[in-house]
Amino acid sequence: MKLKTLVFGAGLLLSAHAWAMTPNNEPIQPILPAKITDPAKVELGKQLFFDPRLSKSGFISCNSCHNLSMGGSDNLPTSIGHNWQEGPINAPTVLNSSLNLAQFWDGRAADLKEQAAGPIANPMEMAFSHTLAVDVLESIPQYRESFKKIYNTKKITIDHVTDAIAAFEETLVTPHSRFDRWLLGDKEALTKTELEGYQLFKNIGCVACHYGPAVGGSSFQKMGIVEPYVTSNPAEGVAGLTGKDADRFKFKVPTLRNVELTYPYFHDGAYWTLEEAVDVMARLQLGRKLSNSEINKITAFLKTLTGEQPRFELPILPPSTNKTPRPQPFN
Amino acid sequence: MKLKTLVFGAGLLLSAHAWAMTPNNEPIQPILPAKITDPAKVELGKQLFFDPRLSKSGFISCNSCHNLSMGGSDNLPTSIGHNWQEGPINAPTVLNSSLNLAQFWDGRAADLKEQAAGPIANPMEMAFSHTLAVDVLESIPQYRESFKKIYNTKKITIDHVTDAIAAFEETLVTPHSRFDRWLLGDKEALTKTELEGYQLFKNIGCVACHYGPAVGGSSFQKMGIVEPYVTSNPAEGVAGLTGKDADRFKFKVPTLRNVELTYPYFHDGAYWTLEEAVDVMARLQLGRKLSNSEINKITAFLKTLTGEQPRFELPILPPSTNKTPRPQPFN
Repeated sequence: MKLKTLVFGAGLLLSAHAWAMTPNNEPIQPILPAKITDPAKVELGKQLFFDPRLSKSGFISCNSCHNLSMGGSDNLPTSIGHNWQEGPINAPTVLNSSLNLAQFWDGRAADLKEQAAGPIANPMEMAFSHTLAVDVLESIPQYRESFKKIYNTKKITIDHVTDAIAAFEETLVTPHSRFDRWLLGDKEALTKTELEGYQLFKNIGCVACHYGPAVGGSSFQKMGIVEPYVTSNPAEGVAGLTGKDADRFKFKVPTLRNVELTYPYFHDGAYWTLEEAVDVMARLQLGRKLSNSEINKITAFLKTLTGEQPRFELPILPPSTNKTPRPQPFN
Repeated sequence: MKLKTLVFGAGLLLSAHAWAMTPNNEPIQPILPAKITDPAKVELGKQLFFDPRLSKSGFISCNSCHNLSMGGSDNLPTSIGHNWQEGPINAPTVLNSSLNLAQFWDGRAADLKEQAAGPIANPMEMAFSHTLAVDVLESIPQYRESFKKIYNTKKITIDHVTDAIAAFEETLVTPHSRFDRWLLGDKEALTKTELEGYQLFKNIGCVACHYGPAVGGSSFQKMGIVEPYVTSNPAEGVAGLTGKDADRFKFKVPTLRNVELTYPYFHDGAYWTLEEAVDVMARLQLGRKLSNSEINKITAFLKTLTGEQPRFELPILPPSTNKTPRPQPFN
């Protein structure tokens, strides 16, 4: 029965591997706390993540759309970019993003380092260029010194910049959620309703796509398997890269970790409540109309996936110098 | 000689009071560390300061333009507001702003509490309304609980909101600058050049307006006393409030604390380097053409006014609920 649901739900079989890693044979694994091996690199990456001088305007930083006060997201349907341009797609959370099999909704970046290069140079987002971003950093002695110390280089490159940002982002995991405490043996960590929600989540087949430590992020799936997803958002998903019709509306399955914090939902950010999102997913992906009681139980379970948010000091950025290229907010 | 320069420089005599408070008879007093009497209120104020849900778009927070990673300013000539509108005037630093005799360049707000209400409802800035901002906060149980605990109230009002923001802002002082260490007796804290810069700063009359613990913020003065200040910025200064021609171009004297971090300079943000700002001020306010050596010495002194930046954990914001009014970024 479980297997049948899985096959029906997502058109794929889970590999034996995914299940083998599971404590207590559960399809979800706990999030492990970050191991910081190079604190200086992480600290530099944090500064860069918060530095709006990586944008043309001097106003938009990585943290603008992946706000670490707000679940690593901007809580907007689609993001605000340079000159208040309306972004094409919902900004995915940066939290636990190191666990994704690839980055962006369509997976066009292999890893966090490659991802970080995207928005800086995207004319819809930070609207800068890699050369200009590096010029800004090169003009600031404290940055030059940090890069020299960490990368043993006299010349900063965009590769160093994105490497440091990725190193910081790798620390942005959210362990110790109530669900993880339950997974690790604390049977008091979940209420009866939450546990029933988790059982439903497994039994009806959500877990076919939302598995692993990130409860997602491990595969690409078509949005709208049983019923088509109706949206005015023109995003094509993986088909935008491959040109294949079979990849139309195929998106990376988003993580459900901290999903309580990362509203609104789906690639177009069209749904603001978890209850709606659960209802839509069950209908469109699983062909199942859930009762309100079932929706509420699954929602209650999903809220147990909120982990400890990364806690750190707001970074103080080194000031620009007389040589620093000036931001261009209005031209 | 000193008195003559002062009168010439600013058209006013310093009160005996200002000098009397001075350790070692200096016209500048050290910044005292913040005394936090109500940590819960400060913490709530910090959350509100960082919460973009106080704006119509859900994207702009107090910290967007008074960025505490960047000297409490946005380091832009004038700020970016809702829908990327170009602000009318340079965003003053929030650091040490509790020491100002009034808030905004034209002093139209008596204190930080009154100031905080301004940008939330300003259609050029956060473009929200006080009612809507309160509605958002009321919809979030953690905020309701915080306000209840601190203000013993069931109903949040904008007065509570701005009171908490002001309480946080009052903690944003920057003690322990090198200059303050020198003031307090550490004669090694300044180099010879910096000390010569300070002597010049006093002797040529800068100190007539830039005095007190904030090295400014204590009076309104005309921008362009000896020579007119040429700018395309239409701001009228205090005259915009009083309608009096005598108040035209009269602005609150900005603090010089952390001035190294709060570029670009003047109410129009037209000058990016301290050297230029010093040159312009000396010519326009004091009728004095400084040599490059004098400019460099004063600039070196000004950089000793950079104090310890406020250090705190990035606040984690309580999530919106199903009842929270949605942000309206694009309409």
